Amino acid sequence: MATSPTIPTENRFLDLDMPLMLDGGQSLACPRIAYETCGTLNAAKDNAIFICHALTGDHHVVSDHPKTGKPGWWVRMVGPGKPIDTDRYFVICANVIGSCMGSTGPASLSPDGEPWGMRFPVITIRDMVKGHIAVLDALGIDSLHALVGGSMGGMQALSLAANFPERTRAVLVLASTARHSAQNIAFHEVGRQAIMADPAWRDGNYYAFGKGPEKGLSVARMAAHITYLSEAGLTEKFGRRLQNREEKTFGFDADFQIESYLRYQGLSFTDRFDANSYLYITRAMDYFDLAEEHGGLLANAFAKSKARYCLVSFDTDWLYPTAESRTVTHALNAAGLPVSFVELSAPYGHDSFLLDVPALDRVVEGFLG
Amino acid sequence: MATSPTIPTENRFLDLDMPLMLDGGQSLACPRIAYETCGTLNAAKDNAIFICHALTGDHHVVSDHPKTGKPGWWVRMVGPGKPIDTDRYFVICANVIGSCMGSTGPASLSPDGEPWGMRFPVITIRDMVKGHIAVLDALGIDSLHALVGGSMGGMQALSLAANFPERTRAVLVLASTARHSAQNIAFHEVGRQAIMADPAWRDGNYYAFGKGPEKGLSVARMAAHITYLSEAGLTEKFGRRLQNREEKTFGFDADFQIESYLRYQGLSFTDRFDANSYLYITRAMDYFDLAEEHGGLLANAFAKSKARYCLVSFDTDWLYPTAESRTVTHALNAAGLPVSFVELSAPYGHDSFLLDVPALDRVVEGFLG
Repeated sequence: MATSPTIPTENRFLDLDMPLMLDGGQSLACPRIAYETCGTLNAAKDNAIFICHALTGDHHVVSDHPKTGKPGWWVRMVGPGKPIDTDRYFVICANVIGSCMGSTGPASLSPDGEPWGMRFPVITIRDMVKGHIAVLDALGIDSLHALVGGSMGGMQALSLAANFPERTRAVLVLASTARHSAQNIAFHEVGRQAIMADPAWRDGNYYAFGKGPEKGLSVARMAAHITYLSEAGLTEKFGRRLQNREEKTFGFDADFQIESYLRYQGLSFTDRFDANSYLYITRAMDYFDLAEEHGGLLANAFAKSKARYCLVSFDTDWLYPTAESRTVTHALNAAGLPVSFVELSAPYGHDSFLLDVPALDRVVEGFLG
Repeated sequence: MATSPTIPTENRFLDLDMPLMLDGGQSLACPRIAYETCGTLNAAKDNAIFICHALTGDHHVVSDHPKTGKPGWWVRMVGPGKPIDTDRYFVICANVIGSCMGSTGPASLSPDGEPWGMRFPVITIRDMVKGHIAVLDALGIDSLHALVGGSMGGMQALSLAANFPERTRAVLVLASTARHSAQNIAFHEVGRQAIMADPAWRDGNYYAFGKGPEKGLSVARMAAHITYLSEAGLTEKFGRRLQNREEKTFGFDADFQIESYLRYQGLSFTDRFDANSYLYITRAMDYFDLAEEHGGLLANAFAKSKARYCLVSFDTDWLYPTAESRTVTHALNAAGLPVSFVELSAPYGHDSFLLDVPALDRVVEGFLG
């Protein structure tokens, strides 16, 4: 198992001493928020960069993942001398509420001592952001040097910038969107139905049984995983090559490498992720529509922002294609805010923001200054 | 329920009196092939057009579907005075082997009197074509005026033209491909895993229980259905509109119209299609690689063909995008065969070949002459 180079990180918990009021009208009593920090907060507390993670990500940006033992998900971007330089910046990443990696979510115990399960309230991207704000408050950080997020992380970044405009001076949004499209919702709905179709889901009350809806969650992950990759990337990586065999078997084993790869992606995901969290977080993403929250006009969302922005899309990303970033850029233009936008060429589809794209490193480093 | 205008059709069965030798090395003892004809075969038997159906299609091109009562799947294209004019042509469509609409498939009884289930041999597109040839033989048709197919029907058309070159004088291929890509295989594998994950699948032995893996099949259909539509088409048709409600429910009901639509598509599919047939037919499509069958060079597949060809793609089809049709066109060019190719603009994605695209009607009518 690969390990990260030793970069000092702190993994901490924030236990809120008040309820978190949610967009759906309910409140979450005294939630816990797990977060990681790396680097040193200066005396002026003005060198903090907050990173928002994606759907199945977590706050282990740099530290090894506690379940898989794999290096943090963004070690290539974050660390001493890296584009997000922890020698200069104090980097924070908080696990979103609703998740299963330390922050309160459906697998957490509710006040009655039993896991929340599907009694957990439906949350929104803005609710996740309220959790992030609580972390900033606890750390005494009034204004971030920058806010950075890819995919669902980009949605949080846009939501925070719109709803808490005084809390950040720069916003970097990678491979993201200001609203979930019908196709985005459709793929998520397939995943949710796959989970809910699994009898082991038991209406979400599977925690006492030791085993959750692993088959359903695996199918959900397989379907989603296809959307993270490009058609050309899949062709290059797998094509029609067979998996450890010379001939097709004329059966239903994983003859093709792509089948074997997808099955592995699905199964390994079930070791590290909670199925109910997957339901809640995909729901939050589907509900996300920043314009709708602001009177139907996206530019209105940024009316009080004074931050500078950078939007990055990838030419092979068909999940949140370039047009989505362009829409956000136009809204920021309309709001009179300084904004850079670049479409980068990379073969990896949506996942490009996580992978080895040197041009992205230069954009991130350049924008953070 | 809509009904077709009364167009006289004949629905017949051909019971082969010999085994069908399959590409996988097994044989299928005396299979039955269900087919529909429309129009009149002339004395010279040279006015026949054979239509090949798609994955979940069947031979009810013009006649009402026996299970759903809906009009035949291509009544807009086939009939008296239609682009495929049954006043002039004798139109034939045969249900592919492996299917569940009359031709022998996994739900049929095997020689031991029990349903085949997963004992049914894995079939290929070429095996389906052998069934079509048996129908042509039975009807005494040496050479078709034309062979027409969209999607998986196009694969059959290409395979028939390549493997039985003397049997057709023209080949019209719509929204299809000469080989399944890694992404195509990936989506099918998600569907198969969804079916196989359903405990009601019972390793394929569900026929005695009255109820099959309906939830799994429904999820498979939902995932596939997304690939049949375009992102822009979904946005135009559904956008983020809510289903019969003013506000989001902050729950997991089908708040969005696209969710409701997909759930309906999934559920209604289970009323008319056999889950094991879905496994076998998707497998046949994934195995399809016409170049591989012919020494790795697609042009070789058409070495003995003397037919004229027409390839049609749709600009919003991301399942079998235009590049796939272009690849076939180039191979036909290399084989020195007369070929037309056109990319049509239509908003419906892959399903465009089934829908109201007047430009397609003109291409079909023009090519058939």
